[in-house]
Amino acid sequence: MVHHISDEAADEPSITTQTPPNDPSQAPLVYKVGYPPPKNLATEFTETLRETFFHDNPLRQYKGQSGPRRFMMGLEFLFPIFGWGRDYSLNKFKGDLIAGLTIASLCIPQDIGYSKLANLDPQYGLSSFIPPLIYAAMGSSRDIAIGPVAVVSLLIGSLLQAEVDHVKNKEEYMRLAFTATFFAGITQAALGFLRLGFLIEFLSHAAIVGFMGGAAITIALQQLKYVLGIANFTRKTDIVSVMESVWRSVHHGWNWQTIVIGVSFLVFLLFAKYIGKKKRKLFWVPAIAPIISVILATFFVYITRADKQGVQIVKHIEQGINPSSVHKIYFTGPFVAKGFKIGVVCGIVGLTEAVAIGRTFAAMKDYQLDGNKEMVALGTMNIVGSMTSCYVTTGSFSRSAVNFMAGCKTPVSNVVMSVVVLLTLLVITPLFKYTPNAILGSIIISAVIGLVDYEAAILIWKVDKLDFIACMGAFFGVVFVSVEIGLLIAVAISFAKILLQVTRPRTALLGNLPGTTIYRNISQYPEAKLTPGVVIVRVDSAIYFSNSNYVRERILRWLTDEEDRAKAVGLPKISFLIVEMSPVIDIDTSGIHALEDLYKNLQKRDMQLILSNPGSVVIEKLQASKLTEHIGSSNIFLAVSDAVRFCTTKSMQEP
Amino acid sequence: MVHHISDEAADEPSITTQTPPNDPSQAPLVYKVGYPPPKNLATEFTETLRETFFHDNPLRQYKGQSGPRRFMMGLEFLFPIFGWGRDYSLNKFKGDLIAGLTIASLCIPQDIGYSKLANLDPQYGLSSFIPPLIYAAMGSSRDIAIGPVAVVSLLIGSLLQAEVDHVKNKEEYMRLAFTATFFAGITQAALGFLRLGFLIEFLSHAAIVGFMGGAAITIALQQLKYVLGIANFTRKTDIVSVMESVWRSVHHGWNWQTIVIGVSFLVFLLFAKYIGKKKRKLFWVPAIAPIISVILATFFVYITRADKQGVQIVKHIEQGINPSSVHKIYFTGPFVAKGFKIGVVCGIVGLTEAVAIGRTFAAMKDYQLDGNKEMVALGTMNIVGSMTSCYVTTGSFSRSAVNFMAGCKTPVSNVVMSVVVLLTLLVITPLFKYTPNAILGSIIISAVIGLVDYEAAILIWKVDKLDFIACMGAFFGVVFVSVEIGLLIAVAISFAKILLQVTRPRTALLGNLPGTTIYRNISQYPEAKLTPGVVIVRVDSAIYFSNSNYVRERILRWLTDEEDRAKAVGLPKISFLIVEMSPVIDIDTSGIHALEDLYKNLQKRDMQLILSNPGSVVIEKLQASKLTEHIGSSNIFLAVSDAVRFCTTKSMQEP
Repeated sequence: MVHHISDEAADEPSITTQTPPNDPSQAPLVYKVGYPPPKNLATEFTETLRETFFHDNPLRQYKGQSGPRRFMMGLEFLFPIFGWGRDYSLNKFKGDLIAGLTIASLCIPQDIGYSKLANLDPQYGLSSFIPPLIYAAMGSSRDIAIGPVAVVSLLIGSLLQAEVDHVKNKEEYMRLAFTATFFAGITQAALGFLRLGFLIEFLSHAAIVGFMGGAAITIALQQLKYVLGIANFTRKTDIVSVMESVWRSVHHGWNWQTIVIGVSFLVFLLFAKYIGKKKRKLFWVPAIAPIISVILATFFVYITRADKQGVQIVKHIEQGINPSSVHKIYFTGPFVAKGFKIGVVCGIVGLTEAVAIGRTFAAMKDYQLDGNKEMVALGTMNIVGSMTSCYVTTGSFSRSAVNFMAGCKTPVSNVVMSVVVLLTLLVITPLFKYTPNAILGSIIISAVIGLVDYEAAILIWKVDKLDFIACMGAFFGVVFVSVEIGLLIAVAISFAKILLQVTRPRTALLGNLPGTTIYRNISQYPEAKLTPGVVIVRVDSAIYFSNSNYVRERILRWLTDEEDRAKAVGLPKISFLIVEMSPVIDIDTSGIHALEDLYKNLQKRDMQLILSNPGSVVIEKLQASKLTEHIGSSNIFLAVSDAVRFCTTKSMQEP
Repeated sequence: MVHHISDEAADEPSITTQTPPNDPSQAPLVYKVGYPPPKNLATEFTETLRETFFHDNPLRQYKGQSGPRRFMMGLEFLFPIFGWGRDYSLNKFKGDLIAGLTIASLCIPQDIGYSKLANLDPQYGLSSFIPPLIYAAMGSSRDIAIGPVAVVSLLIGSLLQAEVDHVKNKEEYMRLAFTATFFAGITQAALGFLRLGFLIEFLSHAAIVGFMGGAAITIALQQLKYVLGIANFTRKTDIVSVMESVWRSVHHGWNWQTIVIGVSFLVFLLFAKYIGKKKRKLFWVPAIAPIISVILATFFVYITRADKQGVQIVKHIEQGINPSSVHKIYFTGPFVAKGFKIGVVCGIVGLTEAVAIGRTFAAMKDYQLDGNKEMVALGTMNIVGSMTSCYVTTGSFSRSAVNFMAGCKTPVSNVVMSVVVLLTLLVITPLFKYTPNAILGSIIISAVIGLVDYEAAILIWKVDKLDFIACMGAFFGVVFVSVEIGLLIAVAISFAKILLQVTRPRTALLGNLPGTTIYRNISQYPEAKLTPGVVIVRVDSAIYFSNSNYVRERILRWLTDEEDRAKAVGLPKISFLIVEMSPVIDIDTSGIHALEDLYKNLQKRDMQLILSNPGSVVIEKLQASKLTEHIGSSNIFLAVSDAVRFCTTKSMQEP
């Protein structure tokens, strides 16, 4: 449309051998503001769809393959086990076996403890040996260890408790738990299948850090019940109720024997953790410390019969494989909606955790993870889980880290873990009878304490204050109110941030870096010089309905400020406004109206509106709306420097 | 941090007399990527707050003024009447008088009709002579004419009807209407007072076009009841129910006398409208046509006593000034919450209309409107209105246009209109007894038909397909389901668009425009040439948690694609990835993690990550998170061309 003036006066010029810039005899290079080749509606639509849902281009590898090969690849896509299974070796199995045994020893006491967090009997935590098997066949992460996790257990426990009391209506509570698990699986699988996985991105990193930290503290506080041996404990999770509960029972509710067991093993576990952190080779110390604690503590209680002194013990774990629970899932009645709601929330939180873990380890070993495919795997695993007496499982960070460090090679480590858990259920559950609850509390405290990531919080504070507010909002929401409220605050602040971003984009006044043709923000580059008689404003965002009025008013304010300044200093009157549009990646009808209004406004002030470097989408839309004709094609330039030269030339001609 | 290489090899170079670019003897100009001067927390916070809530800098004019002067200015700010009142002249009053009389003649039949849309008695529409007086004192738009409007009347009518039946519980219905009006006023005033006016920007232009069009059609369909004289009409507003209702009564429900009156006057009104559109000087023809129709039709019915033939008439309008309704507003009980909900919705829709109208006319006469101040004025007006037997009023588009064209100078035209309506209420309401309902229906149909802005819809289709979906979604939602659902769809799609924008930002592969140092999107500028061994990707958005993973994966996909292409064509291996960050106006902790992952990923592939032109906010955050140290300050450049030169030099050194 508009020529790039690149003769001797070139602005972002042409220092090449072909066209020496200072040589006016050279023919001018002609560059117009580019119009992308026109697309028809179908192409445009398909492209938007593809970028939104299939940006990772999953069908790429199928191109040019034969039919049977494609089938095999499809099968491998759904069940990666067919991929890595073919070249599985004894050597790899050795790694997986060690890793599997290590995580099994870690997971048994954790599973029992987490099921207590979810207000469920221990066997429902231990029964989660089915989901890891499903994941081993369908999942594509090589490092994730599957199982119940602390935060989701707390979340599902408190959401379920809000609907049904787990003491009074135990059966209903359990059925609702399976229903929620079923819908959590459905949610996860559906998000993955519909390729809507990107929706979980709306939980910002900062919000997750705050939420996890808050949840960890809440979980640790809940364990005080076991570690201090308090019989009459509040059902609320906020810190005020819990501390009140602890305080109220200080004289007649605490049990010193329990405290001795709990505290001493907690010290032992934290010390083991410290060792593991100091020497990475000793990672197995914190990994097996829990099971050792359990064995020691159980033995100790058994020989001293401390349970008769008021030390609470696990008492009874249902032996044997857990039965089918298909008939227990509510498919009709008022509980379906409740189960659905709880399932959606738990499913999404579970996904967030699993995907974050999967990505972290994939980046470490440099392989790619298809988030959507992972979701289908996790979803299937929970659907099956809900039918085999398991509650929501997902990727556990602490276990996955141990798995990784123990040298797992493939998801077979999950299979090993499963088998060990299965054997435990079949054979040795009676041995857990005398395990004191206090030791489980200590194990959970030491497990969740790492979730309080204060270093991340400090970094967030340094980098982005608004992120920090989101982080703290989620944290305090969880700690002082409840898990749900904390989650709600996290999501709300994350959204508010997006809205703020699109409502109040940045604008900048540009100046010339002396001796170059570069124009930059004068507040970033104080050495940049303003051009007399010309105001150059850069808009740092797409111009959409949500910000179009603001952008227009803000540009006018820059102009007024500059006019005032020019008047005060005695500079020439401003007669050109250049809007640098490089960062304006898109514009909608409201944005075009705003530009039109701006144009009319300037006309009344006897000023010329000039656009610089509109992108392909923008120029297309400006043309479709005929705005280019209003503004005049000769007032649209490829670069700011071209535009400035045009202005200065013109103002010299008509003084 | 990084030097701008602008010796002989300058990239966006230095064509000035001081530093001839091709002269290597010249000392190199040194520009670093700029770090803005550090701000402390308080400054940063204040600035964000100011940009968000006080971007129009309303206190600007108070600077350097004396105390009493400031007080006067503050008073003028709250009550602009003190401003324009001082130099009010007879000449201005002439303009206002004519405009006021014209809009009064238009508003009397409209008010009666609109109150029927809201299921209220006619006097509650006519009683709205108080709000214009309040607005005249507090409002800053010179052209807005205040009164009940069609869309808000329909909206409040259908929302109220969903709670209370207006036939069975007339008194409760009316009280809830006043309660809703009260809360609508509170909402409007609060939004303005808290400077949250930007929230209404979240209703996109496209969504409003669709919603208004749908509402207009729904309103017109509702009038069939009066124009066809159907006694037994559905209470639903969707097109299916209404057409069914019309069809069912075709044989025994239609009244031919009514149809004759309704249709003939509708033709007359539309013809008058057509004339007004053709000749702008005859704008008064459509403006006074309604009152003429009313007079003619009333007289006709009176002499023929057509009401005895089944022609429905207004029958009775309460004479005299409407009484106080303070005691009728619910301040306790279950209706408070309902009234509040309805009030918020109606208040926001009313605001949207008034602010849009105010802006339009302000732009035409080139004066500024403070949106937040307008909201306070509109809110106060509705709060007072709710206490004086009025339901929600706002700026009416059709009346404001007539007001503008009739030559109004100040809000005094609203005062004139008020006085005329008051006199009507006091003196001539009995004369309306024989006014046929059909004529009111015709007037409303001819008034709302202009709201179907199909030209705007066509433009939206051309400019932005997603906007068009929002527009049509709102339109069909209103027409086929209900006003509320249409509104909900409009808001939902508007939000979805924002979310899509921040989740899937555009990225572009950049190439060099031969003969220049400019790098542009190769799909917009097909003449642009890629640089062998280097991939240059521009990210067209802030990198936030909502898109950080996508951005990272998309950049890697560009890289993989280019690697494949390079391999296929036999070009050198790619060893540099330049990320052009000019449009990246902000980054958060998730974004920094994504860049870090990208950096690690590239290291594994033996490639160098290079950043070009990070903005002030971005470079600050990169440094706060120590990412600049990882990437290496010498790999961050001021411009793409500098970065490319660095790469090509380096790859020549180490082949």
